[in-house]
Amino acid sequence: MAAGAPLIPRTGIGIDVHGYGLAADELYLAGLYWPGEIGLSGHSDGDPVAHAAADALFSAAGVGDLGTHFGTDRPEYAGASGVTLLAEAARIVRAAGFEIGNIAVQFVANRPKFGPRRAEAEAALSAAAGAPVSVSATTSDGLGFTGKGEGIAAIATALVYLAPAG
Amino acid sequence: MAAGAPLIPRTGIGIDVHGYGLAADELYLAGLYWPGEIGLSGHSDGDPVAHAAADALFSAAGVGDLGTHFGTDRPEYAGASGVTLLAEAARIVRAAGFEIGNIAVQFVANRPKFGPRRAEAEAALSAAAGAPVSVSATTSDGLGFTGKGEGIAAIATALVYLAPAG
Amino acid sequence: MAAGAPLIPRTGIGIDVHGYGLAADELYLAGLYWPGEIGLSGHSDGDPVAHAAADALFSAAGVGDLGTHFGTDRPEYAGASGVTLLAEAARIVRAAGFEIGNIAVQFVANRPKFGPRRAEAEAALSAAAGAPVSVSATTSDGLGFTGKGEGIAAIATALVYLAPAG
Repeated sequence: MAAGAPLIPRTGIGIDVHGYGLAADELYLAGLYWPGEIGLSGHSDGDPVAHAAADALFSAAGVGDLGTHFGTDRPEYAGASGVTLLAEAARIVRAAGFEIGNIAVQFVANRPKFGPRRAEAEAALSAAAGAPVSVSATTSDGLGFTGKGEGIAAIATALVYLAPAG
Repeated sequence: MAAGAPLIPRTGIGIDVHGYGLAADELYLAGLYWPGEIGLSGHSDGDPVAHAAADALFSAAGVGDLGTHFGTDRPEYAGASGVTLLAEAARIVRAAGFEIGNIAVQFVANRPKFGPRRAEAEAALSAAAGAPVSVSATTSDGLGFTGKGEGIAAIATALVYLAPAG
Repeated sequence: MAAGAPLIPRTGIGIDVHGYGLAADELYLAGLYWPGEIGLSGHSDGDPVAHAAADALFSAAGVGDLGTHFGTDRPEYAGASGVTLLAEAARIVRAAGFEIGNIAVQFVANRPKFGPRRAEAEAALSAAAGAPVSVSATTSDGLGFTGKGEGIAAIATALVYLAPAG
């Protein structure tokens, strides 16, 4: 960053929901593969944490959303990993003139138990974004579609900075 | 902004949900009228994107919420447009001594298809707020009330700055 | 804060949901006791506003979540008040080297009527956090578990700053 240049932060928000799919043993969540867990449906790998993170970046930069950049009209992203999409989102946001401050995501699900792999997930997503990504987990106390085990929801916020011109 | 004055940002959050009403051909969403789409119910025009944006501003400034300022005890706001409410929210927040950095909103709905009118929506809402407003869209993969097509939810975040005195 | 030191803000997000429990006259919400209101279930006092605020702090600082710090394996927190947990969360985040900018929470519930006690709630939570906490309320227009009166959801965002070393 240029010394003395005032960096004005911009905030963004992203939500993503995926329902459980038919595939056992196919869960991708928070940039990690979770052996033995039921998978989520989706055009890509269905990772709601990575997708919410990417949408929060797009939202903060004001450059559209996942559908704009990775929609079903972009077959090259079919089956793409969440980490791949987040890395590409970060590239797009930087190309639009922004620096990335941080991204924070919380997901809502009955399982898997996240604590033991939190550091691993944060490392994978932070490497993809090139900026700190924190991930936390909660449940919805048995309520709603997350509580009934129908799917996983994730919500993210991000801070970006308009980079000083040359 | 006064040169050299440190501007401390404050973050805010806003959520808004409206169920589909009885009126066909009456949808107002993200500051725009959507011909041919089923309308949402509400004391005002039922625009959850504009309402979430206004609530995020109030939340960041710590000056209450939509109910505080535009509740059913304020009949002059019955039927008011989302753009009108957002402009008034921005005026209230500035009158409380804050500058507005940006607002970011994402809504969750099966329809309408938002991409083709995103720029138009962002222009309308940014003009109302006097600050950049980004809007993005997603679905909830068939889950929950948004997935079942019972209503539209929107979530917003905002950054405001306590303006330097004098 | 050290004069001239650049403080880089980090944003965080937190969600919390509690279903109504069996106990009448036992609601704790937004740091306050609400006589005559049905209580919420939970390992602690079930205050979703205070819990979402604490999770947003943890999320912004990247130090885990409520489960990490106050989980069911920590019996000393069984029945702890939301204010106690928020104060402890703020202590943990400061001990990790962060200053707290502000926290903003919105909850979604059909009741209680919040406006008359908003200032009291914000004072209680701000004292606990040692930083400004704003609280606002909304409904979900009869939709979802909040609309059906099955529980209360809260969502929070927070800004923290990595404190300059030395």
